[in-house]
Amino acid sequence: MDASSAPQFETLPLTDLQEIGTAVLINAGVKRAAAEIQIGALLAAELKGHASHGLLRLPRLVRRIRNGVANPNSTGKHQWIGQSLLHVDGGHGLGPVVAQHAIDALSDRLETTGIALAAISKSNHIGMLAYYAERMAQNGQIAIVLSTSEALVHPYGGRFAMLGTNPIAIGVPAGERPFVLDMATSKVSMGKIHHYSDTGQELDAGWALDGKGEPTTDATAAKAGAIAPFGGPKGYALGLAFEVLVGALTQCALGTEVVGTLDSDKLCNKGDLIFAIKPRSGAASHAIEGYLDAVRSTPAIQPGDTVAVPGDRSAAREAAIRENGITLPAQLAAELRALSAGRDV
Amino acid sequence: MDASSAPQFETLPLTDLQEIGTAVLINAGVKRAAAEIQIGALLAAELKGHASHGLLRLPRLVRRIRNGVANPNSTGKHQWIGQSLLHVDGGHGLGPVVAQHAIDALSDRLETTGIALAAISKSNHIGMLAYYAERMAQNGQIAIVLSTSEALVHPYGGRFAMLGTNPIAIGVPAGERPFVLDMATSKVSMGKIHHYSDTGQELDAGWALDGKGEPTTDATAAKAGAIAPFGGPKGYALGLAFEVLVGALTQCALGTEVVGTLDSDKLCNKGDLIFAIKPRSGAASHAIEGYLDAVRSTPAIQPGDTVAVPGDRSAAREAAIRENGITLPAQLAAELRALSAGRDV
Repeated sequence: MDASSAPQFETLPLTDLQEIGTAVLINAGVKRAAAEIQIGALLAAELKGHASHGLLRLPRLVRRIRNGVANPNSTGKHQWIGQSLLHVDGGHGLGPVVAQHAIDALSDRLETTGIALAAISKSNHIGMLAYYAERMAQNGQIAIVLSTSEALVHPYGGRFAMLGTNPIAIGVPAGERPFVLDMATSKVSMGKIHHYSDTGQELDAGWALDGKGEPTTDATAAKAGAIAPFGGPKGYALGLAFEVLVGALTQCALGTEVVGTLDSDKLCNKGDLIFAIKPRSGAASHAIEGYLDAVRSTPAIQPGDTVAVPGDRSAAREAAIRENGITLPAQLAAELRALSAGRDV
Repeated sequence: MDASSAPQFETLPLTDLQEIGTAVLINAGVKRAAAEIQIGALLAAELKGHASHGLLRLPRLVRRIRNGVANPNSTGKHQWIGQSLLHVDGGHGLGPVVAQHAIDALSDRLETTGIALAAISKSNHIGMLAYYAERMAQNGQIAIVLSTSEALVHPYGGRFAMLGTNPIAIGVPAGERPFVLDMATSKVSMGKIHHYSDTGQELDAGWALDGKGEPTTDATAAKAGAIAPFGGPKGYALGLAFEVLVGALTQCALGTEVVGTLDSDKLCNKGDLIFAIKPRSGAASHAIEGYLDAVRSTPAIQPGDTVAVPGDRSAAREAAIRENGITLPAQLAAELRALSAGRDV
């Protein structure tokens, strides 16, 4: 079969990818328990349709381990600052592994403290924040998760990237299915800009600046530039507040000093925060469920439209993907198979 | 002097207004210490140029005390849920008084816990959130403050108001002057809509819907309608997350059930959250100061423009207002003088 007729995408069952992904990491020197946590986080992103936080990050993670900037088996060094504040030195471990160990430590404290916060530094990319917020909320905890990233976002009115995409996730028990918000404070993701560039699409006006700080709709020019903050001056202010908050609690690098979440060879120096809080009562959880249903029932401005609540659309996507399998670029699938079989790529 | 020649505005020194305002509350049955806290919060808003959270709320507060829906001397009943989570039943006390007593209790815990959270219910309007966040940050604490309000904001794509304006404040020590963010999750404030209506100005497209849920630029029609969330679907999602978060922790009313921050005769049933957290170190504080200066130095897109950091513009306003005095509508100044002299208005 020649290259032009090669399939561009391949759809695989979740269980196959769990097995392949875990084998990739075990071959890279990661112990099985840690490998399963890392792959769980990447697959959770695939299940919600967020490929940018999914398996495409796995080959890079293997390279990071080989290059000595990701420690395959660190779970993080814990130091309690008082009863409820946990400083975690990630020891350059895998992001989800360090995060999960921190969450376990917070959960142990919650009964006696009511709230506990982990401030994590020197850890690798923790992936899609909803992964943690959703599972904590399913376990009856309120979760707030923040993370910083390389500077990709320009200040409101400014020409160059000075802020990370600085996402936040909030998970709250709400009857049958938890409420889960997960959003970056950038207008769009850099992944989306790359996708538009790869597929020759033009960006919307106002999404990005080029490398000289001029507004552009050329996706390729924007790759060397900066993304706009969402929501104008307020979204900028919020993203900046998150960067400052994470910095004050983790002493991580800030702004243009941040490296290590998009490359293969630099020690990652961003920070993560995970708040775990005990909700008031089951009654409050049911009241929230009722309120969210009332919000969903708001008549829509556009006839035929419906009002959604955060998580509704990704829950629908997840059900379909669990049923039909996860679709990956064929080249990525081949690369993962090779790595899982112990072949170098 | 006839009505047409009456002055519309009057400018008074801060100290005069402190005295007048405190006397107004003492005449309404508030003890001096509590009156000073409440007036401090209202004047802090005036100093930052946010009249909507300033003295114009004082006559209404007096009516609320007279009507028995604000308790002049409750400081809130405290119940610790574990070492770090404080449930506060405000007992329908004055918002800033209940909040300040909660903050004092959190501060006492912080040395031994590292983080503490107050979840406040049954308290009156707490005013401008920056008031708390700024003072906590000046005292070396990291502060996150959230509050809910009457439903004034429509869901993204929905016709009617289902969310409060749900503001957030974040205060972080940052060298010389703390970083302070304070923003509502609505596109504009209802106060601004009223001001546009009063002065016959047209709203920008996309700010508001009328009472039937149709987009409008008529400010008077918008007063009976709903304000847009800031930042499209993301801003909506965030405002909703804040409402859900406050609800889960305070068991307050949600959405259209919320009353008592804009009227004179209903028991206030919104909720407030105040997080106090111990920062990592003085070094982190100085690193943040340096980062914020770097952000301010970003070249601007518009020639002659500068990039601002949250709090910069209100700090400049505050310096000018401290120097020149606080300007109030003359009718409000007269009303406050009458109330301070013990006359009914």
